[in-house]
Amino acid sequence: MALAVVGLVATPAPPQADPPLLGFTAASAVRQRALETEFDRGLSADTLRTWMQRMTRLPHHVGSPHGRANAEFMADLFRTWGYEVAIERFDVLFPTPRVRVLELVAPTRYRARLAEPAVPGDATSRLTQDVLPVYNAYSADGDVTGELVYVNYGVPEDYVTLARHGIDVRGKIVIARYGGSWRGIKPKVAAEHGAIGCIIYSDPRDDGYAEGAPYPAGSWRPEFGAQRGSVVDMPLYPGDPLTPGVGATATARRLPQDSARSLVKIPVLPIAWGDARPLLAALGGPVAPPAWRGALPLTYRLGPGPARVHLRLAFDWRLTPAYNVIARVRGRELPDEWVIRGNHHDAWVFGAQDPVSGMVALLEEARAVGARMAAGWRPRRTIIYAAWDAEEPGLLGSTEWAEAHADELRTHAVAYINSDSNGRGFLGVGGSHTLERFVNEVARDVVDPQTGVSAAERARARRRAQGTREADGSGDLAIAPLGSGSDYTPFLQHLGIPSLNVGYGGEDAGGEYHSVYDSYEHYARFGDPTFAYGVALARTAGRVTLRLAQADVLPLRMSNFAVHVARYRDEVTALADAMRQETERRNALLGDRVYHLAADPTRPFVPPDSLPPVPHLNFAPLQNAVTRLEQAATAYDAALAARGLPADSATGRALNAVLLRVERLMTREAGLPRRSWFRHQVYAPGFYTGYGVKTLPGVREAIEERAWAEAEQQIAIVAATLEGVADAMTRARALLGGD
Amino acid sequence: MALAVVGLVATPAPPQADPPLLGFTAASAVRQRALETEFDRGLSADTLRTWMQRMTRLPHHVGSPHGRANAEFMADLFRTWGYEVAIERFDVLFPTPRVRVLELVAPTRYRARLAEPAVPGDATSRLTQDVLPVYNAYSADGDVTGELVYVNYGVPEDYVTLARHGIDVRGKIVIARYGGSWRGIKPKVAAEHGAIGCIIYSDPRDDGYAEGAPYPAGSWRPEFGAQRGSVVDMPLYPGDPLTPGVGATATARRLPQDSARSLVKIPVLPIAWGDARPLLAALGGPVAPPAWRGALPLTYRLGPGPARVHLRLAFDWRLTPAYNVIARVRGRELPDEWVIRGNHHDAWVFGAQDPVSGMVALLEEARAVGARMAAGWRPRRTIIYAAWDAEEPGLLGSTEWAEAHADELRTHAVAYINSDSNGRGFLGVGGSHTLERFVNEVARDVVDPQTGVSAAERARARRRAQGTREADGSGDLAIAPLGSGSDYTPFLQHLGIPSLNVGYGGEDAGGEYHSVYDSYEHYARFGDPTFAYGVALARTAGRVTLRLAQADVLPLRMSNFAVHVARYRDEVTALADAMRQETERRNALLGDRVYHLAADPTRPFVPPDSLPPVPHLNFAPLQNAVTRLEQAATAYDAALAARGLPADSATGRALNAVLLRVERLMTREAGLPRRSWFRHQVYAPGFYTGYGVKTLPGVREAIEERAWAEAEQQIAIVAATLEGVADAMTRARALLGGD
Repeated sequence: MALAVVGLVATPAPPQADPPLLGFTAASAVRQRALETEFDRGLSADTLRTWMQRMTRLPHHVGSPHGRANAEFMADLFRTWGYEVAIERFDVLFPTPRVRVLELVAPTRYRARLAEPAVPGDATSRLTQDVLPVYNAYSADGDVTGELVYVNYGVPEDYVTLARHGIDVRGKIVIARYGGSWRGIKPKVAAEHGAIGCIIYSDPRDDGYAEGAPYPAGSWRPEFGAQRGSVVDMPLYPGDPLTPGVGATATARRLPQDSARSLVKIPVLPIAWGDARPLLAALGGPVAPPAWRGALPLTYRLGPGPARVHLRLAFDWRLTPAYNVIARVRGRELPDEWVIRGNHHDAWVFGAQDPVSGMVALLEEARAVGARMAAGWRPRRTIIYAAWDAEEPGLLGSTEWAEAHADELRTHAVAYINSDSNGRGFLGVGGSHTLERFVNEVARDVVDPQTGVSAAERARARRRAQGTREADGSGDLAIAPLGSGSDYTPFLQHLGIPSLNVGYGGEDAGGEYHSVYDSYEHYARFGDPTFAYGVALARTAGRVTLRLAQADVLPLRMSNFAVHVARYRDEVTALADAMRQETERRNALLGDRVYHLAADPTRPFVPPDSLPPVPHLNFAPLQNAVTRLEQAATAYDAALAARGLPADSATGRALNAVLLRVERLMTREAGLPRRSWFRHQVYAPGFYTGYGVKTLPGVREAIEERAWAEAEQQIAIVAATLEGVADAMTRARALLGGD
Repeated sequence: MALAVVGLVATPAPPQADPPLLGFTAASAVRQRALETEFDRGLSADTLRTWMQRMTRLPHHVGSPHGRANAEFMADLFRTWGYEVAIERFDVLFPTPRVRVLELVAPTRYRARLAEPAVPGDATSRLTQDVLPVYNAYSADGDVTGELVYVNYGVPEDYVTLARHGIDVRGKIVIARYGGSWRGIKPKVAAEHGAIGCIIYSDPRDDGYAEGAPYPAGSWRPEFGAQRGSVVDMPLYPGDPLTPGVGATATARRLPQDSARSLVKIPVLPIAWGDARPLLAALGGPVAPPAWRGALPLTYRLGPGPARVHLRLAFDWRLTPAYNVIARVRGRELPDEWVIRGNHHDAWVFGAQDPVSGMVALLEEARAVGARMAAGWRPRRTIIYAAWDAEEPGLLGSTEWAEAHADELRTHAVAYINSDSNGRGFLGVGGSHTLERFVNEVARDVVDPQTGVSAAERARARRRAQGTREADGSGDLAIAPLGSGSDYTPFLQHLGIPSLNVGYGGEDAGGEYHSVYDSYEHYARFGDPTFAYGVALARTAGRVTLRLAQADVLPLRMSNFAVHVARYRDEVTALADAMRQETERRNALLGDRVYHLAADPTRPFVPPDSLPPVPHLNFAPLQNAVTRLEQAATAYDAALAARGLPADSATGRALNAVLLRVERLMTREAGLPRRSWFRHQVYAPGFYTGYGVKTLPGVREAIEERAWAEAEQQIAIVAATLEGVADAMTRARALLGGD
């Protein structure tokens, strides 16, 4: 049978007339394209490879000697390329393990190894100096022994399922598998339910042999490979736990550690499936529901017991210096408008994929921009390249910098463009919907290395093939709203700066995440063997940066934003309706004893609680605000299409000033309920999802938590916020003149 | 926490005024209830247990000495109770294994054990005499060697997935897991795709340790437990492969074996996961999609190879006597109207659950009816109790009997009531929708042993708790349409006799199906420890039998039938629409090269074929027929409600005669396309699902197979069939008098 294998050699896209660029006059667009052609010529895959080898040869977590060396190495590079460079230091709380003991003490004994063995063909896996062992940063110290309970992914609905089986985790140690939420949710929810300890393991179904051959035969997580990671309560506030809202400078006022609300309340430890298997095999109790079963060759049971576990953890709770590298080129025309482009440089161990694959693409981008600067070019606006430290423990480097410079950033920042891990595959973009059309233009203008079509066309093909939502009402490829998980969070959600997260992936086989095996060898075999996608990222993020820096008027398009917000409005109203129906159904079933009659009387069973009925909420303020927003955005687009950009520079500047501040109008000083650090009213990480986004979070989470009075308050707040955005668009429309 | 454990002690339902019984006058209903009270008093759990122990002490497959002894034992019992008894013998083709060899020959060697070991606490598992080894009946003889390919469940869409990976099974041996279809579909589809051999294994995800502790610690299938079973092409025609359409009497004309179209074309062998694991572990090639992965601790791969397998099978192809026990009591008033109640008695080995759990309930029912007969009572209509032989190889005993007595049955049969395996749990009923209201009345009048509510209320509670469709438009608990899998098939689908399949289950832990471990010990621990659900089955099926035998007018309710048929009409029209949309979508994606662009260019990939567009079909004849059917059924119900049953006996007999034949009107002499044995136009087993039902099968399968001209022909045929049913209802309505 003939296999239609798509060639690896990129064939160039057919020539076409250049379409206009959002925010550019026709003349400016011609100049911009010429600049981008020169920029592309400055990019090389070889540099990426060389830098990755150098930066990943030793462990480089925050506080490590090689982490500092990497910062200085990058600072030197930036200086060479003509940037003004500063290494900005913050002193952050960063615990490292002193004691890690995990034992099964009954009904049999097993002592967990808690170590990732060296493997052939992976040079750095043999190193031990400075290697952080497997742990969860910001776990509590503790020495606990208790019966074990399996809690699936350990998210709130899993505890509902346990309760239906009559299982309570109070005084117990829970074991959760990775997946289903950001890891920090698991110990947080476990502690809320009274558990005294938490173990998180990598099940081979989600992250191991079920997906492919384990490393080093294939890429996937081996028997004793484990996932490090932070469990700080990032959805409460990210950054240094001791300095919420302010930069962790040498003189900053710090909370006493026991007042730091983002610290986990119980000891928590990540382990490999090789260590988890004896624990899970020792569990009794009800058989886990089908969706809870992993790929280990055993009957997954819920417990509690007879497995009893002893968990002892102690940490060095030290202030550690984090080194952010900040490289700046001052804008020639608009030096007070800043375009910020960042990637973190710290890793859990060697971090070839996470974060060096993205970091070296940023460096290469900055080098190619520097080459233009060496030829006498300067950007219209100021460009700032940032290499963040201490992202892994909880976005510390970026957050402390954003907090330390909050006032300047609120005044000057045009946008923040983030990248992180990168690999072979499809362009993925998340971010502010105001930038959606702009990003679509960039993706249209970057060629996919493997297929020769544009990155946009390939990304769209993937969504079409998968049958997932492809585009919003505007016809543009939809970009995903951002929750958390990388350094955009302080810029977007604390400061209201339009932000993007850009990267390629989906054809890079995984399995190395946060393990000692995230090495150069692994990346060069499975991540992006030719580094072509590193170059593609530099081309993509470089265009984003350069177009934002050069645009005549900031390239925001509010009608894309309005389309998404209207959808989020529909979602939250549908959510309330669905909860009302589900509540009525449940209460009717309880009234008819249906749960009792449907249950197996020989097994423990607890019916769900009856619930107060879901009231009808007054969504009218939100409906009205969205309608106004849609009208104002459409009117602005129509006027722009009819008249083009303002001819006189004073009007242009005035329009620019309105657009510069429009995302700031989406924030509220008071922040979200119970987490004032998060100020954006449209995007937030979910309080119980962690990385996963909640849009219109004040309203959505109030509904999810059945806080009906709060939901109505939040509807009013979000409505007022969106009215403010609509007002700004009306002002912008007026600046374009005409009727 | 207080656990709300529902008591095991049955509390009686609160007293209520007796509701009317469909088909009975008020006076008859009072007599009927008195009869049922006496009948219930005759039932005992102890007899069930004693008979099960006796019947399962030795293997009793068709042709075995103990199978014949069981038939004679039951015949004696029936005689004792006052029935006229005959043992009707048929001589059927029943192959048994002579040679079974399965070896992995590359890249390593492994020879499959193909044996189920004895286990402690299960006395009969130690026996070897007369035990049929693990095999698939009607596999071809063969000696083949080839590369192995993993085909998931081995259903047609799995081969579509393989094709997308560039994998062709021609000349290969496939390994499929049990599940996803009836087993006989797997070798049939494999052979259609050119495979030379087929292995079927029990994956522990679907049938093993993932579900609970393996036997004997728990109930579930152990490492070397395997599933026997027939692979004869039952959706083509069931029964003796050599005598389709006629009884396999001593003098019947038999096909030469090589002309028997229901015989499988390739060798096929079922194995345990203990034997499958080395084979699957030796597979290379692409990693199987997530939904294809089982619970073995390995990476599921598709192949082909490097695993090469040698499969050698040879069988004794012998005619074997099958002994049906037929016990009859002649009706006092309507001896020419027959109510037939059957269960099979043959097993694969010891068969405590399958079929003895149902067989002993039938015996107990017949004993209690016999006690009424001993007291001088006789049924109005003739009752026939049947214990079928040779069900396991392919419904041979029942099919040959139904074929041998086809003319009588078409004339006399009122209904056929089947049972098979039974266990603790919920009442499940499948069958003719014409009997739906009637069965609802029976279920309302039987008390669930564990909860004290009616079997109907408990079954309804389960559907409500699961959120599945609970009732049809009539308010009755919907009964499922029948495909195949037990002895109702010849009665319903060949002869057009209204049929029911009745049983309890869902709280009986499984794992023993068609293995040597389906023993008395297993059943008494995990199936129905107190035999209370055996008694419940006797109460339920006994009421069904007695009410059908005693009704003044046959208790069919055509409006229930019409509600379901209207739904099936909606389904087939929606199916055509969905296929049209999906075809358009696929062709659009192909035109835009979407599949190519979305594929990983480093992996083998074949896009789907483009498809001719789906035409709009003329569903109007079906729409009109269903409308007429709905109107005629509603008019009959309304007249019956307004006037009651006919007072004069001549009209009653005339009405009865119409109702007796109404299900026959749903059949067509010519049968379904490509399988004329199946004559029912509303219900058939799916040609590619096996047991799974296809309603309006002529239309639905033509659409599924994209045979558009045939679909339009079948729409006309089904429409004419339903018009005939509507005509009969109109005649029935007229008999009730009035305007």
